Amino acid sequence: MRAESKRRSFWGWGYEDQALDDARASNIAAAAAARMGESWNAGRSALLSPPSIEDLDLSPPRISAPSALAEILTADPYERALHTYGKSYRDVLRALLGEFHHAPDYVALPRKQTADADIAAVLEWAEKERLAVIPYGGGSSVVGGVEPLVGEDYRGTVTIDLREVSGVDEIDKYSRAACIHAGTLGPRLEEELRPHGLTLRHFPQSFEFSSLGGWIATRSGGHYATLYTHIDDFVESLEVMTPNGVVTTRRLPGSGAGPSPDRLFIGSEGTLGIITRAWMRLQRRPVFRASADVRFESFEDGVEAVRAISQAGLYPANCRLLDRAEALLAGGDGKVSILILGFESADHPVESALSRALEIARDFKGECSAGAIRIKNEEDKTEAGSSGKEAGAEGGAAGSWRTAFLRAPYGRDALVRCGFVTETFETAVTWDRFSDLHASVMAEIQAAIDEVCGAGWIACRFTHVYPDGPAPYYTVVAKGHADPRSRLAQWDEIKSAASDLLIEHGATITHHHAVGRDHKRWYEIQAPPLYREALAAAKSVFDPHGILNPGALIDPIAVGR
Amino acid sequence: MRAESKRRSFWGWGYEDQALDDARASNIAAAAAARMGESWNAGRSALLSPPSIEDLDLSPPRISAPSALAEILTADPYERALHTYGKSYRDVLRALLGEFHHAPDYVALPRKQTADADIAAVLEWAEKERLAVIPYGGGSSVVGGVEPLVGEDYRGTVTIDLREVSGVDEIDKYSRAACIHAGTLGPRLEEELRPHGLTLRHFPQSFEFSSLGGWIATRSGGHYATLYTHIDDFVESLEVMTPNGVVTTRRLPGSGAGPSPDRLFIGSEGTLGIITRAWMRLQRRPVFRASADVRFESFEDGVEAVRAISQAGLYPANCRLLDRAEALLAGGDGKVSILILGFESADHPVESALSRALEIARDFKGECSAGAIRIKNEEDKTEAGSSGKEAGAEGGAAGSWRTAFLRAPYGRDALVRCGFVTETFETAVTWDRFSDLHASVMAEIQAAIDEVCGAGWIACRFTHVYPDGPAPYYTVVAKGHADPRSRLAQWDEIKSAASDLLIEHGATITHHHAVGRDHKRWYEIQAPPLYREALAAAKSVFDPHGILNPGALIDPIAVGR
Repeated sequence: MRAESKRRSFWGWGYEDQALDDARASNIAAAAAARMGESWNAGRSALLSPPSIEDLDLSPPRISAPSALAEILTADPYERALHTYGKSYRDVLRALLGEFHHAPDYVALPRKQTADADIAAVLEWAEKERLAVIPYGGGSSVVGGVEPLVGEDYRGTVTIDLREVSGVDEIDKYSRAACIHAGTLGPRLEEELRPHGLTLRHFPQSFEFSSLGGWIATRSGGHYATLYTHIDDFVESLEVMTPNGVVTTRRLPGSGAGPSPDRLFIGSEGTLGIITRAWMRLQRRPVFRASADVRFESFEDGVEAVRAISQAGLYPANCRLLDRAEALLAGGDGKVSILILGFESADHPVESALSRALEIARDFKGECSAGAIRIKNEEDKTEAGSSGKEAGAEGGAAGSWRTAFLRAPYGRDALVRCGFVTETFETAVTWDRFSDLHASVMAEIQAAIDEVCGAGWIACRFTHVYPDGPAPYYTVVAKGHADPRSRLAQWDEIKSAASDLLIEHGATITHHHAVGRDHKRWYEIQAPPLYREALAAAKSVFDPHGILNPGALIDPIAVGR
Repeated sequence: MRAESKRRSFWGWGYEDQALDDARASNIAAAAAARMGESWNAGRSALLSPPSIEDLDLSPPRISAPSALAEILTADPYERALHTYGKSYRDVLRALLGEFHHAPDYVALPRKQTADADIAAVLEWAEKERLAVIPYGGGSSVVGGVEPLVGEDYRGTVTIDLREVSGVDEIDKYSRAACIHAGTLGPRLEEELRPHGLTLRHFPQSFEFSSLGGWIATRSGGHYATLYTHIDDFVESLEVMTPNGVVTTRRLPGSGAGPSPDRLFIGSEGTLGIITRAWMRLQRRPVFRASADVRFESFEDGVEAVRAISQAGLYPANCRLLDRAEALLAGGDGKVSILILGFESADHPVESALSRALEIARDFKGECSAGAIRIKNEEDKTEAGSSGKEAGAEGGAAGSWRTAFLRAPYGRDALVRCGFVTETFETAVTWDRFSDLHASVMAEIQAAIDEVCGAGWIACRFTHVYPDGPAPYYTVVAKGHADPRSRLAQWDEIKSAASDLLIEHGATITHHHAVGRDHKRWYEIQAPPLYREALAAAKSVFDPHGILNPGALIDPIAVGR
């Protein structure tokens, strides 16, 4: 319960008390500015400071809460503020600017013991009162997925936060699966599985502050590079509450009976129902590890090495390629691209797999000194359950990179406060299209940064690699306009240019985030029109009045009321 | 073109000239009878012989073909007979009995160069004339998936056979993917990929006589035991013709953008649209192989060994457990259960993986002599493209088992002709439920066989194993009633008992076959009702008049006409 006792930040990442203080924020800002050949000398006067809850001036709820729901609903200002935004750049900046005019009217907190009835009661009330319902897990969305921006068709909004519906319900150690409540955040989930020697082994960057239900609803990708890393593959069965009733799928290791029902809900982003629990496939905790850092003079050689490794059937746990700029961020010297290779197993040593992968890397001019190879053939008993260590105790670039990775959102918040425009975007694309896509992104987004912001840079890393293509992830850090309100438009212009490029080059608008509200325009180009219509038709069965997360992913079919 | 020049059997498996002759059929029948302690002494007089096309007495087509479709449609009696049934026991027996009264009125053969237009024209005609359309790939369905039994709501039936829409259209060797026409049968597909050093590596038992489109439409399972074996995982993108237009999904190695559109069509069994082509993920052809046969005194020990191996992250290509009865069928001595273990890679030797798997097997009392281990570290250049050899050149039980496996349907046809009731059924279930399920199936289905048929037996093998559960496959061979027509009811009674058991025990009604018409009753218990309703709603978008494969999988929403 360590995690739950701290107070979550309503304006930025994670816990309130973990946010960087002004001095540290200034240091980071100075370093970022220096990289652009600028100086961050505006001093503390230019530092945006979070508003206080008392200053937010939230408008009162537009509808009254029925007394029957008094124990579930709250209109507490902190709760309403906390549930106004996800955690994207746009979200943090708007929160810092005190813009909370579309806070949800109520936040519902279903109780664990009566979760299904509580959720059903809220859904019924929402249907009757014509309220939009926003399902909410950990709130780490970076695509506007939990933002109660729902259009004028609704009389109000209620966010259903599943944080009380948390914990592991049942473990089937023999089949290596567990029934887990959807509101369970990453650390608690792993804490409860650890005594059984098991792990879900799903570690998205948001791990500490995202939930099982959220992972499933957004088709989350973990930080492992290959094989079992996407939440899609771990789902054995689901229970979903819809306004029209409960959907319970059968626990099965495999099936050929019709299109997979689970796959319809995986990625549905709260538009078809609220996932309440799931049987998840687990793994034994890894014991054997081998990892190494490989240096490449040329990023292109690194790409070729990664492609060859991904097509060799070796299945590295990590196969993370950082370009020079990204390597610099991760504590490297910024002179070369770095490939972090890691293998792990609960059952058998993995040195031979690493050796073979290094052999392939060397074929593409990768350099790896003996000192950059780490072998560890015992379980790390010192792991205290902190998310940063869950994925193993790797040293070298892998270890320092991972620490930076998990702390990054706090640093990002600091940069936002200091006036930078900074965000990431990601995609996946087949190998044949990557080179053109990457060249375009690096050239055109750099040009957009220069034009829109005057100074800034873009970096690239691969987060996942598949035999048929990589998932590149781009980080943008740019100088923001002196007027904070203008920075939103600056980012929107860069993001829009990037999204256009992804779609033009045959890539996906999102690979391990989601569509939400922010990507919807491009999703509508990517997804076949008839398919979106079919999805809307399916939605009309589960959610006939279109109350679930309107504005995200798909439009409900016009409501007959 | 080797394959296409032979004539397909309209009543049984494969090619007409490959059917066993009366003498060989009698030998097989005598052996099967002996196993039940009976003698097959009825002699040739009791052998059912296939009818001739001329004797079939097909009723004339109920509608006339428009002249615009003259080049696409045929009412040729052989074609109509060929498209009346799939290849299940029920199908073969009914065909042998000359029951072809529900032959399709027409068979449409879209031409490769104008496939989309041809299919669209047939769909348009079918909508206008209120005809049911049966999409047809290789015709190997064993669940009534291609049978034009469509109810009285339709004025006629037309089967669209994609056999001309065949071949590999484009290869992207860099991303290791290919665009393949849906009508391509297994051997041609592999023939065209082989010069490029690539393989789809998907080998269902029906490989020779099933098509890419059929595999996708039915969520086919290949014969590999673990990891990449299901067609679901190989699909990179799809093109689907629906009565309401074309759906083309984007080629992507991964995506988090909404529920996967491909997954809605994978397993849709021709009810949502006709898959015309797909980009498929390929693999390099394996070079390194290691395999072994392990003997277990007790089937239960073998099960435990398989569970442990499946949970060890070793990913054997084969991990096929045969119980004593099944081992006897495969040429073993029938005194022990046999586990066939095989590993393969295109990139690196796999002996260490086999060694570790054997170590685990020995922990569960598995016995493996040095002579039962086979290592081969070079590509088999002698493979001539026959399906039996595609999966590698393994000797021992693996090799003889595989030959028997692929020839089995011809033997099955012989047994049907000789008066036996013989069929298979399969499922998948989590490990925790397997033991009870298996005990019930073995006891209750044996009892059903005894009661319904008087004599017979049931055998079990695992076709696939997952970390969370096995996919058991059961074979039934029983003595049929003297009156051939009664044998249908005999099998239906056994099958019904088996299906009830699967559903009661939490297993799936099908694992690598499909639902079709035969499993629909049980699928309706397995699949959540709201989900089926949502699927029907999605169907109403693609197929608003409900003309696609009615009777299979799901019911169309009542048609507004």
